[in-house]
Amino acid sequence: MFDYYIEGIGVIAAILTTSAFVPQAYKIYKGGISDGVSLTMYFVMLIGVAFWLVYGILINKFAIILANTVTLVLQILIIYFKLNHRNKTE
Amino acid sequence: MFDYYIEGIGVIAAILTTSAFVPQAYKIYKGGISDGVSLTMYFVMLIGVAFWLVYGILINKFAIILANTVTLVLQILIIYFKLNHRNKTE
Repeated sequence: MFDYYIEGIGVIAAILTTSAFVPQAYKIYKGGISDGVSLTMYFVMLIGVAFWLVYGILINKFAIILANTVTLVLQILIIYFKLNHRNKTE
Repeated sequence: MFDYYIEGIGVIAAILTTSAFVPQAYKIYKGGISDGVSLTMYFVMLIGVAFWLVYGILINKFAIILANTVTLVLQILIIYFKLNHRNKTE
């Protein structure tokens, strides 16, 4: 039972940190503003998130797998939007 | 021994995702550019990171504690810089 409470804290953490990324992804999608973060940094983050996902699977923790699966998808979308936007403005 | 390998993957993940935040914090510190991310979102992230830290302590995982301690400090600095920069421009 105690494990469920702990995993619940992880899920709350996952929802908070992941949802904070959604408006950023949307802003980049709209292309109206630059987020000032370089593409290189998004690639570094992407590899980092992939490592977190592997780590979460290896220690079998739902909250970590959940957070990093969603973040991985968001990061791929952000990179795609940034590349697409860059190509349009060039 | 296998646990050390798993924790090693977590530490690599921690280094990658955390180091990706440093240039963003530095850019906001310099105040030259906006990062396009709202203060509200940084507060949401901050609470999320605090939850991750509690989660990491509860499941006793070094990589999670390491990543979220560093990120927590960076997020507090970013919020401080953003507030400071906003006050200067007002």
